[in-house]
Amino acid sequence: MRIALLGGTGDIGEGLALRWARDTDHELLVGSRDPEKARDAVETYEGRLADAGADGDLKGFANEMAADRADVVVLSVPPYYAGDTVEAVADTLDSETILVTPAVGMKGDEDGMHYNPPGTGSVTALVAQRAPDAVPVVGAFHNLAAGKLADLTVEFDLDTLVVGDDADAKRTVCGLAEDIEGIRALDAGPIANAAEVESVTPLVINIARYNDDMHDVGAKWI
Amino acid sequence: MRIALLGGTGDIGEGLALRWARDTDHELLVGSRDPEKARDAVETYEGRLADAGADGDLKGFANEMAADRADVVVLSVPPYYAGDTVEAVADTLDSETILVTPAVGMKGDEDGMHYNPPGTGSVTALVAQRAPDAVPVVGAFHNLAAGKLADLTVEFDLDTLVVGDDADAKRTVCGLAEDIEGIRALDAGPIANAAEVESVTPLVINIARYNDDMHDVGAKWI
Repeated sequence: MRIALLGGTGDIGEGLALRWARDTDHELLVGSRDPEKARDAVETYEGRLADAGADGDLKGFANEMAADRADVVVLSVPPYYAGDTVEAVADTLDSETILVTPAVGMKGDEDGMHYNPPGTGSVTALVAQRAPDAVPVVGAFHNLAAGKLADLTVEFDLDTLVVGDDADAKRTVCGLAEDIEGIRALDAGPIANAAEVESVTPLVINIARYNDDMHDVGAKWI
Repeated sequence: MRIALLGGTGDIGEGLALRWARDTDHELLVGSRDPEKARDAVETYEGRLADAGADGDLKGFANEMAADRADVVVLSVPPYYAGDTVEAVADTLDSETILVTPAVGMKGDEDGMHYNPPGTGSVTALVAQRAPDAVPVVGAFHNLAAGKLADLTVEFDLDTLVVGDDADAKRTVCGLAEDIEGIRALDAGPIANAAEVESVTPLVINIARYNDDMHDVGAKWI
């Protein structure tokens, strides 16, 4: 499968690119607004994969080009760019392209991080609103510990929660998640349930802050 | 220690009463608005403990009486009664009594359960607002799987997240949580961070609904 990681030079994009490159045969299109930056990131990722005795199928592109070629487009951009990024690539998307959003709106204060969704109720709902109607939107990969994900020496045993209104698209994304060693995908229902999933991200940051020896926390639902 | 479980005839109260009775020497004061109902519940709990080859120190009281005698008061009542219950027992509380709130405001629709906090931002903040100023308030036991907690044949390995502004009170409640076999207490920061903790409760209900073979889900933070 061809997977575009828009904003694939950021931390969650990096982790997903490295893990999919190492664990699967999927073709990974690392996107950035600046294609030169995307190509530099790919070079870095290839070096890190080689250090781990692995390789993968990675290429760098401008976001639009990456989205145009992909079966699955992951919006691994900061939440305040999510809507604009969707609109920038909207012409390249159709009912055959699955749009995946891992972004979460948060604001921090002296006490910790707090969930701060857009007016649509969740970033997932915002992306669904801004995407062309026919394009299936799936929320996933919100609460994975990004640092651990990007460190190929760390063995994983974490869950990712998946929301979406299109059952086929959701099944495909669950499969892609579970292609990564040590990730289990759980269904959290339709996009209407996205806020409860997204709000786990500030929580794991707070848990990491307030407990000794817990950095880069994720969840296992049992 | 003397622990009052106000609304201790409900499901989370039942689970905590049974587990503390089995695993500790704490004196458990099961409270209800109707003391007769509290005494009936104690009788039932004693039967269930005997079935599990265990016993404990349990007594039934009216809520006010239970709160008056306790070192720690757990508000195991539905969220919409939490504020009024605090006011009903306010005269019995002082700076030596720790008030613990596990309640979560939720509303359900056809898609699932959704976090629905009161205007104060969280039930924990509401309880802190309605409690006398000197009384330390701690949020805990929100996301434990209530059915598993009340079933003594189930072995546990779950985390509970604890929030509070009084470090000593929080430490005491973490200790009480970890007195129960298989529960680990994690600090999620001050009461300002309670919403992110409480909102995990509708999420675990959604996970149980949308995945096969997952009932009564809890979390392990790793």
